[in-house]
Amino acid sequence: MRVSSIEQTAKANSEIVSTLFFSEMRYFVKEPRHPAADRFENSSQFKGHACPILYAAWEEAGLLTHEQVLSLRKLNSDIEGHPTPRLEFIDVATGSLGQGLSCAAGMAYVGKYIDNASYRVYCLLGDSESAEGSVWEAAAFASYYKLDNLVAIVDVNRLGQSRETMLGHDLFTYAKRFEAFGFHSIVVDGHDITALLKAYDEAKTITGQPTAIIARTLKGKGIEGIEDKDNCHGKPVTLEKAEIISSKLINKTKINWEIQSPMDDVVDVDFEIGKIKMSSPPNYSIGEKVATRLAYGNALVKLADTNKRIIALDGDVSNSTFSDKVLNKYPEQFVQCFIAEQNMVGVAVGMSCRGRTIPHASTFAVFFTRAADQIRMGAISFANVKFAGSHAGVSIGEDGPSQMGLEDLALFRSVPNSIVLYPTDAVSAEYATELAVNYKGITFTRTGRPNTPVIYPNDEKFEIGKCKVIRQTKEDKYLLIGAGVTLYECIKAHDMLNSEGIKVLFFLILIIFKQFFKPLDTQTIAEQAKRVGGKVLTVEDHYQTGGIGEAVALALGEIPQVCVRSLCVKEIPRSGTPDELMDLYGISAKKIVAAVKDY
Amino acid sequence: MRVSSIEQTAKANSEIVSTLFFSEMRYFVKEPRHPAADRFENSSQFKGHACPILYAAWEEAGLLTHEQVLSLRKLNSDIEGHPTPRLEFIDVATGSLGQGLSCAAGMAYVGKYIDNASYRVYCLLGDSESAEGSVWEAAAFASYYKLDNLVAIVDVNRLGQSRETMLGHDLFTYAKRFEAFGFHSIVVDGHDITALLKAYDEAKTITGQPTAIIARTLKGKGIEGIEDKDNCHGKPVTLEKAEIISSKLINKTKINWEIQSPMDDVVDVDFEIGKIKMSSPPNYSIGEKVATRLAYGNALVKLADTNKRIIALDGDVSNSTFSDKVLNKYPEQFVQCFIAEQNMVGVAVGMSCRGRTIPHASTFAVFFTRAADQIRMGAISFANVKFAGSHAGVSIGEDGPSQMGLEDLALFRSVPNSIVLYPTDAVSAEYATELAVNYKGITFTRTGRPNTPVIYPNDEKFEIGKCKVIRQTKEDKYLLIGAGVTLYECIKAHDMLNSEGIKVLFFLILIIFKQFFKPLDTQTIAEQAKRVGGKVLTVEDHYQTGGIGEAVALALGEIPQVCVRSLCVKEIPRSGTPDELMDLYGISAKKIVAAVKDY
Repeated sequence: MRVSSIEQTAKANSEIVSTLFFSEMRYFVKEPRHPAADRFENSSQFKGHACPILYAAWEEAGLLTHEQVLSLRKLNSDIEGHPTPRLEFIDVATGSLGQGLSCAAGMAYVGKYIDNASYRVYCLLGDSESAEGSVWEAAAFASYYKLDNLVAIVDVNRLGQSRETMLGHDLFTYAKRFEAFGFHSIVVDGHDITALLKAYDEAKTITGQPTAIIARTLKGKGIEGIEDKDNCHGKPVTLEKAEIISSKLINKTKINWEIQSPMDDVVDVDFEIGKIKMSSPPNYSIGEKVATRLAYGNALVKLADTNKRIIALDGDVSNSTFSDKVLNKYPEQFVQCFIAEQNMVGVAVGMSCRGRTIPHASTFAVFFTRAADQIRMGAISFANVKFAGSHAGVSIGEDGPSQMGLEDLALFRSVPNSIVLYPTDAVSAEYATELAVNYKGITFTRTGRPNTPVIYPNDEKFEIGKCKVIRQTKEDKYLLIGAGVTLYECIKAHDMLNSEGIKVLFFLILIIFKQFFKPLDTQTIAEQAKRVGGKVLTVEDHYQTGGIGEAVALALGEIPQVCVRSLCVKEIPRSGTPDELMDLYGISAKKIVAAVKDY
Repeated sequence: MRVSSIEQTAKANSEIVSTLFFSEMRYFVKEPRHPAADRFENSSQFKGHACPILYAAWEEAGLLTHEQVLSLRKLNSDIEGHPTPRLEFIDVATGSLGQGLSCAAGMAYVGKYIDNASYRVYCLLGDSESAEGSVWEAAAFASYYKLDNLVAIVDVNRLGQSRETMLGHDLFTYAKRFEAFGFHSIVVDGHDITALLKAYDEAKTITGQPTAIIARTLKGKGIEGIEDKDNCHGKPVTLEKAEIISSKLINKTKINWEIQSPMDDVVDVDFEIGKIKMSSPPNYSIGEKVATRLAYGNALVKLADTNKRIIALDGDVSNSTFSDKVLNKYPEQFVQCFIAEQNMVGVAVGMSCRGRTIPHASTFAVFFTRAADQIRMGAISFANVKFAGSHAGVSIGEDGPSQMGLEDLALFRSVPNSIVLYPTDAVSAEYATELAVNYKGITFTRTGRPNTPVIYPNDEKFEIGKCKVIRQTKEDKYLLIGAGVTLYECIKAHDMLNSEGIKVLFFLILIIFKQFFKPLDTQTIAEQAKRVGGKVLTVEDHYQTGGIGEAVALALGEIPQVCVRSLCVKEIPRSGTPDELMDLYGISAKKIVAAVKDY
């Protein structure tokens, strides 16, 4: 295997991967994503140093041809610089460091508590990346939930990209850290195959806690001029050198172990995306004041009613996001991730792998910013995770700017293939939650803190990518676009303007953004914009960047005679009441009226 | 103090704060931000549970009046739900958890290695927030750099917002974790004033490592019906109850300690923002191929030449971002933060406090996504930090989507009061770096991986908020807007179109976005858009959301007859060569030509 990987670029450890793939792990070579198979999570050593080894292992196992492996990093090849789930044997994309253990913990949680199956999860980490805090969030989670089906293997080669790591070859401190975070730890020579096999065996005897195997390795082991040397990171060896090395190593590396088949103890999942229903439709009265975050909680319970694989994940704010409704009714479908949003997202990505569950992660909208990189990698992994963020915008009031979601639309709109749902009232919030669960991919539902009146009948129909016209007359002269709290301000402004004889058309965007190909309901918006004579005013409780105003402006960009003006939050807000703040930051009914008159 | 804070909302620990403020810490009450004073970093217990205590302490110390303290969370009051540096005694805003220790470590690093002064840094953490991985990134950093002037105090009250924390009152495990991460740890009863004072004294005797004081506390200590009870998080006590409690506690809490003045051992800083110069101007030849990331490294060294308080921070990629040029010439002005981007940003925010240094944090543009929340909080803290992100866009080539910065413009544009600089060639990259350091606030400079030709003379003048017209004739029919690598594609497209007789006007945006008030050089762009007849085409190596196209579309939104079309990356990219990828994702010269013809 090292021979094959040298021909690519690797200077990584082959004994760890070969012992795992040819002795320890149970899987079907021809069906690597079989639900009962053991999982392997390559948490990624930087620049894919480990992935050529992985490709080589799969070549050895017979899944890839040598020609495929040699197509590494070429366009049209799925053998990429960092592996993605475009490959059958990859569950989660790698390339951003320190995220793998969270994903692995999510898989292990599902194995132990949802699938109740015997498959095990192996996660290969680099030593450099264990400087990332998300590794320790994952470690705390894995030990809290006693994930004894999880084995972390830390490849301690002591070298980062630019220099030696903080701990070098101090294996003892790595072990101490993992132990302090609740792991059983085993220190081994990572080039000693017998020691590795023994360590895997020992891990299987440990109950009630995960295991960390701390493996001392030398980068580029056996390669003259490279072994344990600084500053060779990511650099390919010359073909000449590779051939010399190959001839030296080739006799030692041929392996003839047998791959074990998985146990047959995993049941089929009982859901079909596209056909998941809430146990009952929304049940509110027009005008009743209900926060959309509360309606989200209600909808989640109704989904959990009909489906045991709907899982709610929380970052210790379930009594604010109302995901605690699931906790109260179905504690086994609720996972408390504590205040560690990066890990919550990573666990969710892991839980969604192989379609075993549909995780719903919720926290304050703004705290998803903490996990922006995990969300980004989730998209590259084609993960099917539902996010819901509450406490959007200045309308949360007194808690101040640190708690206000003002960048969340930009964050989730920039996720490729995601959809963003922005319900206005309780009815639309319930249907948004149901629509989201039936979309395969990343979704984000933005919910609000204040209680706002129900405006839709309980049997209203909603569709992804279609917005709703709330009020219209033939004499309309302006198009107002609002969503969530600002829609109510638009309605108030409409009443105020109408009483002064100014006609305004209203527009509700329920589902604002289907990224990229259907970024907006451009057709309806364009039609209405033209109908009123071209003056469009967007109003949003969000910063300008990447928000509704910019999205609408570009969507209408090619239509001459249509103008777009945006009202949005333009500075760092302060504490105050919701009404005071909406007015101070220019998105209240009063400010809308002024903007319309000034247009 | 507890009396005062009850009148607000708090149920937090007063003994820790009172012993710190009235015995341990050295500072001037009338000048809390004196450079020689000890620093106090409130890492924030959720919902500002600790900040009322802090306000009460400052009332006790005579800095705030009782009326001011009672204005908590009111509009126009700087006594906010979560404290921000709008208050003189706050260095860093709180409200997003687990960030404080990084900031404190940054302050302590400056104290020990840059100021070489005796001031100490105290950081109060909540137990819930120590689930955030960023706490452990900071801990690893603090011990690696032997920050013995740093004391972390963990208030272990065992209760989170929605339930008990993972570790409850298991103080031993907290201590074990901090020890594994290199701290000296002391376990105390957090309500025992003598024990606390003794712990602070012990911390002062420890050399070569930071100290963690693990303090066992009871939330709402002494308050009937609240002490150590679940689910009282963030809820105010009734006025009636507060009065009963006040009368019970009032005699115990009056404190008459003396506040110690700081030592006078800090020198004045030697820079003045607005007047910082590189040691020499750029020195390139027109047409010479130089990556903008390399020019950034060159500029940084030239700034370090003239100023000892310019500090370069790295996340183990300095040999890719070229910040290693500072390491090589001025190792004392370089801080290796290893692969822990959240901590790197937090440390930078801490280092910038009280104007002691101007930190320059650089990594791959995409990896700032990992620290998006720290950057957001940095803005709320009015931090003066310079960010530079390299390896922007698909033009990095083979490494694949995980390494490509495609959301970084959206991320940094959404930071209030920030500026975003997007230089095209080496000359503009050097000047961009110099412009950034002379702007007080958060700046982001986007640099590229490929070597691209120098197009500006070495004495070209650049200005924040002004863009450059590269080519124009009187017959121009289209306005192309490019930046960085896409500008070169625009130039190529221009040549191709001209050879076919189609006139195109070029436009370089060097400094694209000055957030909010001057979001763009709208004036120039609008003038030119009108001049060519209204057809604008933006081309960017970035996703659509929050990028150049959306910003331009909204900026021109109110001008009828102007159209905006955007070429940008519309899906998750793959591995390939830069040229292949630019073409595949629609931002190559060839694709620009096609878009112009089709307009």
